[in-house]
Amino acid sequence: MNYRMMLYIIGQIIRIEGLLMIIPLICSFIYPQNSLFAFLIPCLALTLLGTLMTIKRPKNKEIGAKEGFVCVALCWVVLSLLGAVPFVLSGEIPSFIDAFFETASGFTTTGSSILTEIEHINKDILMWRSLTHWIGGMGVLVFMLIFLPQADIKSSRMMHVMRAEVPGPVVGKLVSKISVTARITYAIYICLTVIEIIFLLFGKMPLYDSIVHSLGTAGTGGFSIKNTSIAYYNSAYIDYVIGIFMVLFAINFNVYFLIITGGFIKALKNEELRWFLIIVGVSTAIITLNIASTYGGLLNGLRYAFFQVSSVISTTGFSTTDFNQWPELSKAILVLLMFIGACAGSTGGGIKVSRIMLLVKNAFREIKYIIHPRAVIRVRIDNNAVEHEVIRSTTSYFIVYIIIFSFSVILLCLFDPQYDLVTNFSAVAACINNIGPGLNAVGPAANFSGLSNASKILLSFNMLAGRLELFPMLMLFSPASWKK
Amino acid sequence: MNYRMMLYIIGQIIRIEGLLMIIPLICSFIYPQNSLFAFLIPCLALTLLGTLMTIKRPKNKEIGAKEGFVCVALCWVVLSLLGAVPFVLSGEIPSFIDAFFETASGFTTTGSSILTEIEHINKDILMWRSLTHWIGGMGVLVFMLIFLPQADIKSSRMMHVMRAEVPGPVVGKLVSKISVTARITYAIYICLTVIEIIFLLFGKMPLYDSIVHSLGTAGTGGFSIKNTSIAYYNSAYIDYVIGIFMVLFAINFNVYFLIITGGFIKALKNEELRWFLIIVGVSTAIITLNIASTYGGLLNGLRYAFFQVSSVISTTGFSTTDFNQWPELSKAILVLLMFIGACAGSTGGGIKVSRIMLLVKNAFREIKYIIHPRAVIRVRIDNNAVEHEVIRSTTSYFIVYIIIFSFSVILLCLFDPQYDLVTNFSAVAACINNIGPGLNAVGPAANFSGLSNASKILLSFNMLAGRLELFPMLMLFSPASWKK
Repeated sequence: MNYRMMLYIIGQIIRIEGLLMIIPLICSFIYPQNSLFAFLIPCLALTLLGTLMTIKRPKNKEIGAKEGFVCVALCWVVLSLLGAVPFVLSGEIPSFIDAFFETASGFTTTGSSILTEIEHINKDILMWRSLTHWIGGMGVLVFMLIFLPQADIKSSRMMHVMRAEVPGPVVGKLVSKISVTARITYAIYICLTVIEIIFLLFGKMPLYDSIVHSLGTAGTGGFSIKNTSIAYYNSAYIDYVIGIFMVLFAINFNVYFLIITGGFIKALKNEELRWFLIIVGVSTAIITLNIASTYGGLLNGLRYAFFQVSSVISTTGFSTTDFNQWPELSKAILVLLMFIGACAGSTGGGIKVSRIMLLVKNAFREIKYIIHPRAVIRVRIDNNAVEHEVIRSTTSYFIVYIIIFSFSVILLCLFDPQYDLVTNFSAVAACINNIGPGLNAVGPAANFSGLSNASKILLSFNMLAGRLELFPMLMLFSPASWKK
Repeated sequence: MNYRMMLYIIGQIIRIEGLLMIIPLICSFIYPQNSLFAFLIPCLALTLLGTLMTIKRPKNKEIGAKEGFVCVALCWVVLSLLGAVPFVLSGEIPSFIDAFFETASGFTTTGSSILTEIEHINKDILMWRSLTHWIGGMGVLVFMLIFLPQADIKSSRMMHVMRAEVPGPVVGKLVSKISVTARITYAIYICLTVIEIIFLLFGKMPLYDSIVHSLGTAGTGGFSIKNTSIAYYNSAYIDYVIGIFMVLFAINFNVYFLIITGGFIKALKNEELRWFLIIVGVSTAIITLNIASTYGGLLNGLRYAFFQVSSVISTTGFSTTDFNQWPELSKAILVLLMFIGACAGSTGGGIKVSRIMLLVKNAFREIKYIIHPRAVIRVRIDNNAVEHEVIRSTTSYFIVYIIIFSFSVILLCLFDPQYDLVTNFSAVAACINNIGPGLNAVGPAANFSGLSNASKILLSFNMLAGRLELFPMLMLFSPASWKK
């Protein structure tokens, strides 16, 4: 293990987190009711600490796969622990475990909240809360790559770090230089976010609200600043703008890069994109028919169905209605979408559409093998044969996912016996898939404040495991990772 | 496709089913209230039809993997369709779809019932109902192998048929000749069943009840002849006898063969057996602690915990208490056990312990691959490296399982919108894993009579798919199977 280099990277992350606190600090100056010192102290402290940790660059910059995974996991845990400080200092979330849950929920773009009265919280605190979504969405280590000196990020070394943070079975590099890839990705990310802010302003949403909700949409996070989430604005226009942008942020960013570089047709040929759009379309259609009578007609049904489908499959978690009250068919479809999740290489969570594609194709290949036992049958995506290692790691991913999921539900039942199975099942589903609200006692109209501390820590682990695609967090607990 | 040979095998199965109806026919003579003609007519008709179909033996006896799978699936569908006739003719189950559901539930050893007042049903009908469990448990095609002329069952040919019917990732042949393997297996099966009958008689259970419940235990089926299942007898002795026998029938029959041939120590070294016993032990211990206060002490808690754990993991489905009323932790553990299921090569259902072992080992191998990317790491069971094909087909099995499961739950929500998600989820779990009762509206104190016909057909498909380990039933619907 290259501990020096790992410390150096963690130091960089701490420094970035300190500097990022300048943004809520600006809010503290603008708005009268503020938590100035809650940001000023950690901002200075983290920037100083991070600078001290990174002042001496390590000679050996080699980072292997093992170090990459463990380092990314550590960075995210540190990020969540330190990011919780302003919540506690401001007194808005007095319990540190609650604050840690909220921050982990932010950075992992989950959006599950323990806050019961959001509208009373200071605006700088809410800005920080939503900013964590935006940073976590595209990845804080990817963000770091933009600023690191070129000597530190020879592609071969930092690829492992990027692999652990960018979601999906394979990491697509847009261009050969990894720092340039990071820059292009963040440029697209910033543009889309700004466009959403402008669209929301047209819908007469106040500037502050537009910014905060766009940050939450971009990261597919889902923290709102209203108790009733987006339902507060009661505007079909706003519903559709956010609904469409949730879909856009759930699409692989490679697609946008392809569109920009002139390959619009090629971009549309992307198989994952087609599956994703078909799933969104079919689910929206079925739910629209299922709920139309409740919402007085197909048109209104479509509005609510599309928003909730888009919110769940993109794993954002905004809501415009309490889908906990929907018929069981619609609820069952939403639960299924929770697990499918967004496209690889997007800011969304879940298992990812490309993994589902791989798993389905791989499973049905078995029927072909029964019929032609001696044939060599390849799984193909975008007309390319998928490598054996990718299939192996995808199926392993899926099984580890099911194992972590099952044990989490059982532990939750142990820690919080007062809740029913649906609550506990959906709480784990909402956290490991980075969605936000679940069903019943953790449904869109409720929140996670009633859970025990043990459950909150467990669900924070689930959120981090889900965001980092399981293995980095598991390796943190594996003795084999820490051997020389 | 060798249609001639497939028809020949189906004919044999029809003849066997006709002959098996002699057993309830005997009951019709013994007990005054009887359904004599309900058995006499199909008994004669099926025996005649089967004899006609098998009178001319096909010249080409070659059965490939594809034919084997499709043929087994067809046999089981035909078996369930024809086995339903006595229920309808006797008037005890007037609706054919209900009767088909009950018969499929019987042969697949599921034990889900649509009957609301079991104690009013004629004894010959109940005998037939429980006999289907016993036949289905060890497999009707395996049963057929005992009687087929030697020329028809050269191992190389019938192995594919056996592979499709005997549960587990690999089929262990006890001896080189497949018909001898079938005979040994059935000999052990009959012995264990008779021993259970004797033990139950010692517990003062009436002879008829002892036979019927032993048939249900042996097949890990779970049909009872009392409305309150085994709780009716209110005897700790009977609870423990049936509880222990459910565990015994959930163990791989190879283990008994090893014990008989002198390898007692070797038998105990079986890795699947150890995992199975540990899972049963740990689950029983946790649930005992969790429910002890409700049942007035640890000893009584143990009695109910052990019986329900044994019933669920063996996928039998007898009950001595309504576990739907248990705390959520105990319920969550039972739901998990539903999916794990019994050992391979037993009469139980579920995913099977050996598959779970393979999946877990394979998944955690991924962590080793991250640490040593270039190493060759083999999954080992019983200290033997598992072949790549077995791992591939096991992971495919698991994914196909999840796909069928998810779509079934959604379809059930569509067909029966009046039920909650837990009911529909657990109904599918209970059927695809061949258990019997689920939770809420299909819990141990309720039954499946309230479901729509569409749901009953869907769940019958799930039961058959679960019993035959998915692929045979899927291949029935795959156009590729029917091509020349």
